[in-house]
Amino acid sequence: MTPGRFIAFEGGEGAGKSTQARLLADRLRDAAIDVVMTREPGGTPGAEAIRTLLLDPPGEGWGARAEALLFAAARADHVERLIRPSLAAGKWVVCDRFVDSSRAYQGGAGGLGDTAIVGLHGFGSEGLRPDLTLLLQVSAASASTRLAQRDGGRSDAIGGRDAAYHAAVASSFAEIAEIEPTTTVQIDADADAATVADRIWTVVAPLAEGSR
Amino acid sequence: MTPGRFIAFEGGEGAGKSTQARLLADRLRDAAIDVVMTREPGGTPGAEAIRTLLLDPPGEGWGARAEALLFAAARADHVERLIRPSLAAGKWVVCDRFVDSSRAYQGGAGGLGDTAIVGLHGFGSEGLRPDLTLLLQVSAASASTRLAQRDGGRSDAIGGRDAAYHAAVASSFAEIAEIEPTTTVQIDADADAATVADRIWTVVAPLAEGSR
Repeated sequence: MTPGRFIAFEGGEGAGKSTQARLLADRLRDAAIDVVMTREPGGTPGAEAIRTLLLDPPGEGWGARAEALLFAAARADHVERLIRPSLAAGKWVVCDRFVDSSRAYQGGAGGLGDTAIVGLHGFGSEGLRPDLTLLLQVSAASASTRLAQRDGGRSDAIGGRDAAYHAAVASSFAEIAEIEPTTTVQIDADADAATVADRIWTVVAPLAEGSR
Repeated sequence: MTPGRFIAFEGGEGAGKSTQARLLADRLRDAAIDVVMTREPGGTPGAEAIRTLLLDPPGEGWGARAEALLFAAARADHVERLIRPSLAAGKWVVCDRFVDSSRAYQGGAGGLGDTAIVGLHGFGSEGLRPDLTLLLQVSAASASTRLAQRDGGRSDAIGGRDAAYHAAVASSFAEIAEIEPTTTVQIDADADAATVADRIWTVVAPLAEGSR
C-alpha cells in the first residue's frame, strides 16, 4: 500500500474553497480513490470545539496571539487524530484550509509574522505540509458576491473583519505561494464552479493516475 | 501610583494552593491592598472556556502538544485581559497556578521539555513572570488525603493521571525552583492551613510593607 496524498485548499473568504474541495473529493472517489474530506479549524471533536471558540468567541474576542495558539492547538489535534492516521492508511486527505491560512491571517494580516506561525506549526504538528496546496484566487468583487449569497451574508468573528484585513490576507497568500512554489498551485477561481473544478482536475489528475 | 505585584501559587494536586491563595488575598486586603484573585487555566471568559475544554476534553482527550498550546492560549488571554491591566492599575494579582504549572506538567511530566513551554509563553504572553512564586511542597500522603476530601475524590482529565505522572510533576517543580531561585520560594505545606498561611505571610509581608 502506498501512503495517501494530502491536498489543501487555501484562499480568502468567498473564494469557493468548500465547494471545490467537495467537487474534487467526488472526482477522486469516481477515480476509485479512498478520500477523507475535512476542514480547518475543525475535523476532529476536539478541533471542532476549538473552532466554535474561534469563530464565536466568549467575552470580548481573542487577541492575535491567543487566536494563533488556538489555531495551532486545533491543527495539532486534527493532524494527530485524523490527517496522519488517514495518510498512513493510504487514504487521500482533502482539507478546506490548513496552515497557510494561519500564515496569511494571523501571521500576515494579524501582524504576528510568518516565522512565529511556522514555529507554532513546527511545535504542534511537526511542520506537516500538504503534498499539494491549491490557492484559489478571486477578485474582491467575486468574493463579495459569493459571500452575500452565503447564509444571507452572515459572517463569523474572522470573516467579518474589515476590507483592509482581507486585502492583507490576499497579499499574504500570494507571498506564501512564492515561498512554497514546489507544492503550491495558484488557480484562477473567478469562473463558474464547473470550470474551476476542471482547472483543478488538470493539476490533480496526474497525481491520481500515479496512485492507482 | 506604583505598579502592582504579581504572586503565583504553584504545586501539585492537593498541595493547598486554592486555600492558601484565598487566605493570602484576605490578609493583603486586611493590609489595605487592592487584590485581584484569579486562577489558571481560566480567569477571563475566554480562558475559562478553554479551561472547560482542557479539564473535560471532547473526543478521546488532547495529545501533549495540543494540550500545551491550549494552556498557552488561555494564559495569553488571561495575561492580556486581566493580569497586565490589573498590575498597571496598581493592583496586586494573586493567581492559583501560572506558567510554572505548564513547565512542570506539560514540559516535565508530559515530556515536551522546558524550552518548548518557555518558548510558547514567550510568544503568547511576552514571557511575563510573577514577582514571586510560592511553591507549595507536600508529601504524597498529604496530597492524597486532601484530594480524597475534595468533591468526594473526583478528579479532572489532568488531575486524574497516574502516580508516575504526578511524581514527575513534583520533581519538575523542584527543578524549576532551582532555575528561578530569585523569584521562587518553596513552602513546606504539610502543616494545617493556618500554619502554612503564617509561613507564607512571613515571605509576603515585607513586599506588602514596601508597597504602602
